[in-house]
Formats: sequence, structure tokens, C-alpha cells
Amino acid sequence: MKVSIERAVLVKAVAQAQSVVERRNTIPILGNVLIEAEGSDVTFRATDLDTEIVDRVPAQVERAGATTVNAVMLNEIARKLPDGALVGLTLEPTTGRLTVEAGRTTFSLATLPREDFPVMASSEYAANFSCNAGALKRLFDKSQFAVSNEETRYYLNGVYMHVAQGDDGPGLRCVATDGHRLARIDGPLPDNAGDMPGVIVPRKTVAELLRLLGQVPEDSPIAVSVSETKVRFATPAVTLTSKVIDGTFPDYARVIPSGNTRRLEVDASDFARAVDRVATVSSERSRAVKLALDEDRLVLSVTAPDAGAAQEELPVAYDAGALEIGFNAKYLKEIADQVDHENAVFLFNGPGDAALIREGGDMSAVYVVMPMRV
Amino acid sequence: MKVSIERAVLVKAVAQAQSVVERRNTIPILGNVLIEAEGSDVTFRATDLDTEIVDRVPAQVERAGATTVNAVMLNEIARKLPDGALVGLTLEPTTGRLTVEAGRTTFSLATLPREDFPVMASSEYAANFSCNAGALKRLFDKSQFAVSNEETRYYLNGVYMHVAQGDDGPGLRCVATDGHRLARIDGPLPDNAGDMPGVIVPRKTVAELLRLLGQVPEDSPIAVSVSETKVRFATPAVTLTSKVIDGTFPDYARVIPSGNTRRLEVDASDFARAVDRVATVSSERSRAVKLALDEDRLVLSVTAPDAGAAQEELPVAYDAGALEIGFNAKYLKEIADQVDHENAVFLFNGPGDAALIREGGDMSAVYVVMPMRV
Repeated sequence: MKVSIERAVLVKAVAQAQSVVERRNTIPILGNVLIEAEGSDVTFRATDLDTEIVDRVPAQVERAGATTVNAVMLNEIARKLPDGALVGLTLEPTTGRLTVEAGRTTFSLATLPREDFPVMASSEYAANFSCNAGALKRLFDKSQFAVSNEETRYYLNGVYMHVAQGDDGPGLRCVATDGHRLARIDGPLPDNAGDMPGVIVPRKTVAELLRLLGQVPEDSPIAVSVSETKVRFATPAVTLTSKVIDGTFPDYARVIPSGNTRRLEVDASDFARAVDRVATVSSERSRAVKLALDEDRLVLSVTAPDAGAAQEELPVAYDAGALEIGFNAKYLKEIADQVDHENAVFLFNGPGDAALIREGGDMSAVYVVMPMRV
Repeated sequence: MKVSIERAVLVKAVAQAQSVVERRNTIPILGNVLIEAEGSDVTFRATDLDTEIVDRVPAQVERAGATTVNAVMLNEIARKLPDGALVGLTLEPTTGRLTVEAGRTTFSLATLPREDFPVMASSEYAANFSCNAGALKRLFDKSQFAVSNEETRYYLNGVYMHVAQGDDGPGLRCVATDGHRLARIDGPLPDNAGDMPGVIVPRKTVAELLRLLGQVPEDSPIAVSVSETKVRFATPAVTLTSKVIDGTFPDYARVIPSGNTRRLEVDASDFARAVDRVATVSSERSRAVKLALDEDRLVLSVTAPDAGAAQEELPVAYDAGALEIGFNAKYLKEIADQVDHENAVFLFNGPGDAALIREGGDMSAVYVVMPMRV
């Protein structure tokens, strides 16, 4: 293998690849990136056995071939090469080392044979469709904060992507919950997505997907393929393939309250900032903030026995009678931060009941948060 | 105590104070900042018993008084208050709590009595002089990287500030070394500084001083006071007082080679970048980089048995015969990063001897680094 590649192109491809590589892994080949040169392209491939990313970039291929080298080291080398350099990658037939050359700098890196690299088996997908990058980004971006970190509830360690009946007919829906809060985000149904099986996309894959979607224009078409066991997202250059979580996502519809009638409307960013401020006095992990509601008036307060107390008053639209209800400050703030509209709408029932949060009059994003005793 | 203070002023003063506070301390009062209001000023004072910082800021003082509150919490609260707010600080006589008010937000913070706060005893200083902020910053900024972290060699855990005979007569000199490398920086001798006792300024104090000097214009006069046991640096608003390290700084002149005659001149930033690049292949903490010198040619190389090897060639000015010598890559790069002139000048003797580094023809900054076997 002998190729020349622009430094900026190499940096981007290797950075993408090495982000999939697990830092602490005991299998050396999983720390490596597989470099394959053929035609006028070079592909960089990395995997953690559950997720695989393949980045295809243009290069001058003088001699086709393939090898694997340490992903983190290649990434660091690429970053440190001078801007604008043309980088030569040559697999030396005699030593088996990869020579990386740019200007007056030469690296000679240890390799592992390409045959040892675990390439993910190709699969049949039950549904193949195309989705706008911006729409896909919104679905995952607005739901991922609610994904559970509890390993014992592995079926909550991802975002449940499926087809569901929304207010405007069937749509593509992402739901995530950790049992304390829930996010349900609806988007339009892409053509040919109707038969898609519902899949739980693992947290790490969601992060890689959002990273990938952040690098392409909002209107780029993303090719999505879904089977019972795998999901694939592809831009023209990069393909992200991942196993999905083998479990059943719970019946989330049960936990979305439908009878809440006490309606509060508040400026979302004022609310988020106020929650953040009053929570400062408590150093506990699960800080409870109390919402005291009365005629067009909301008082947020936190009391920490040792450190002190804080309260802030916000002007709001509310006329459903006095109510005091407590929530985890972090959960409230995370939901308020998701609100893209000016106002957040809260629907409460009693102080022991889950609250429903919406973004103004928009029904395509719904959040639920459980109360805490205060 | 009852005062009003602008949010921006409060943020700056409390940030300065809390940076002195040790995060993990077992004595509660040392986590607090002492707030004293009198006349038209409020002072914020923090200490770790070795270092004390006092920031005096203008405020509307409605009722004089003093109290102490948790520095980290007050800092976080101040940062989160809305930009432009006027912040009220009131010590409630009945509850003993400090009320912090801004707009519609109210905090009530636990306090500890001012009497319990350990204010550093005032001292007689042997020398008092004024030094330009820029000149003082240069002395400490360029020497601090060489300070030792080894607690057993406590007398190397700071920068030795003293009066010494430089090439242009007596001057103010800062020296730091960890036994592997050394920095010796000379500056002009301020009026009245001639009788100053030499003091070892602890690493933490150096960091606080550089932080302070970074916030004032280069030509601000800094009042410096020095005794055998303490040192004080003061801007008009902020006073930093610190104990000095109770020990004898070694006779550093012995380790500065005077007979090195093999002279290498190289672009300092090219050199620093090349060292950084070739060091990438080694993940060891003490990576050795080999310098192979020949007629106007320098080849830097690193060999890591498992990962591979790297080399880079640099055009240099050198005509003192072939030489191969190894150094710790981190040490070489840190020294090259200090060079403010375009070129770095290295003076070598043999491969087992310390090298001397200067900044072009400037004799006011001298660095020494010990070789490593390669």
C-alpha cells in the first residue's frame, strides 16, 4: 500500500475513526484503525465490535493495499503535522511497518495484519430510507439527555427509534427515558420507513451519529437502514453501523400523563437559568427544587440544611389554583434547555403526579418528569 | 453589614479569592471568604494559612460589618447572577445568615463568625520596592516551568527570587530547577531592592501572582515587600501575601555549564514543533529524543520499541563536528516554548554533559537541561 492524502482530510477521517475506539480495551487490534487503499479512495475503519465507522476519503493511490495501525497515535500524528502538508502512507513490504511521511518528518509505525481486523458482517436490512440530516439530528439530539446510565436496565441505555402515530398521522419517533424523566420527539415519516422495525440505538452510537450529523449540512440526505439487530446511518463519505440493544423498550405511552390540566406557561430560558441559580446552594447530587405556584406567579426555591436557602420569583401565566411540587433540579434544567420555542408549557395534576412539559404549542416534542417530595 | 456591589466587580473579587482556597480542606473556615465592609469599600479575603489574598473593591456600604461565607458557593452564585445586576449582601442580625439579593433572586447563606477567620499577621519587611508588572511577570512566567514537584526536595518547590550580578550589573533574578533542568531569568534591579533577602516563592503563590499580573496593564507598578519569611505583591486593589519556603536554595551557579563551545542555532518554534511531533510515537512519561548533529543539519529522532519510530530533519546553523545527544522530550519542548526570540541557541559539550540554551543573543534568560542516555 502506498498513498498520498491531504493532511486536513486525514485528520478528519482519523479523528472520526478513533472516536469509536474504546480507550481501555484489552484486544490490541481493536485499538487500531484499518486503512484500505483502492482505486482513488482510502477508507479508514474502526470498531468496538458493537459499532463500526467507515470513512472513505479521496487520495492518490499509488499501490493498493491495506493495514492497521494504532488509531490514537495516528490521530495524534496527523494533528501535529504541518497544516497543508501532503501525507504519504506506505506499508513497507519488508518490515511490515507503516511509514508516514510529511515534509521532513518520517514516522515508522508498528502494524497488525489486516486479516486480524474484525470487519462487521454485512446484513440484510428490513427497511432502507433516506432522511434529512437536520430532521434526524433533532430527533436524537432532543431525546438523548433522558437515556438511562443504569446498566441493569440495559433496554433503557439507548434511544428507541420507531414509527408511531403522532398528532399529524404516522411519523418517525425517538423516545428515551431513565424512569425519572422521558423525552418523546416526533418527526415526519420518510418515504419507505413505514415498515421499519423499532430499534433501541445504543447511547454511544447516538453520540457518534450526532457527531457525524453535526459535520454535514442540515439538508444532506442520510441513508438509514434498519433491521431487527442492526442500524446503519450513512452520509456519502461516512457509514456508521451499530448493533441495536437486544431488549424490549417499555410501553412508554402509559407514563405520559393525559389528564393533567393545570397549565403553566413560562419563558423557557428564564426558567432554566432560575433553576440553575437556586440549585447553587445545594451540593447534593439530587437537588430538589420546589415550585410554588399561585395566580400568575411562580416561586422556585431550594433549601439545603447546612449551606442555606435560595429562592427566585418568575412572572408566569398560571390560573389553576395554588400548587407546591418538587423536582430534581438537574432534570428540570435539562428539559428546559431542550425547549427551542420561547415558552415552555407545563401541565401539572397534583404534587405527587408526573408533570408534562411541551414547547409552546408544538406537539412534536413532549417531556415527562416525575416529582420529588420536598 | 449591608452593602450593594456590582455583579461584575463581585465576580472578579470572589473568583480571585476562591482560587486561593484549597478545595479539600478539613477546616471549614478555610473554605470561606472573609467579607469586610467599611467606608466605601468591601474587602474579600481568602487564605490557606500559607497564602492570603485580599481584594478591595468599591461598593455602597449602607451598614459596616463583616462575616464569612463559603467561597466556592459565593463564586458560583455570583457567576450565575444576571449580567449588570446590582447585588445586595446583608448579614441578618437575627439569623446570622448572609442574604444575597439580585433582582428577583434571594439566597440565604450559612456564615461562620469573622472572629474565627485566620487573618495573616502583619510583618516587618526588610525591603519594599516597586516593580513594573510586565517585568515581574516575565521573571516568574519564564522560570516557573522548571519548579520541582518532588515534595522531598521542598526547597525546589518554588521560584528563587533574589538579587544577583548579571551581565549588565546587579539585577532581580528568578531561578527554578528540579534537578533535571533549570531556568535563570534576569531583570533590571528596581530602586530600593538592593538589600532584599533572597526568597523561595512557593509554586502556588507564583501561580496566584501570575494570575494577578495577567489582569493589570504591563506598566502598572506592583508594590513588592520581602522579608526572610514572607513576600507580598500588591496592585492598588489586590494584595497577595505568602510565606516563603523555609529552606536554602542550592548553589545553582555550579550547574550552569560555562565551557560548552559547540554552538547550534535553530528556529525556536520549528524546533519545539519537531520535538512534539517525533515524541508522539512514544507513550512513556520520560520520552527520550535523540539529537544527531552534523554540518548545518539536525536530525531529531525517537524510537519506541513497540510502537515504532519517528524522525525529523531541521536546517540549522552548526559547524562543531558530529554529535549525538539525548534529552527528555518534554523538557526540551518546554524550554523551546519559553524562547521569545526567533532563534534558540544551544551550547553543547559532550553527549554526557548538560546543555545550555539561550534566546538568540539575549543573555537575560538562560536554561540548562541534563542529557539522557539514548
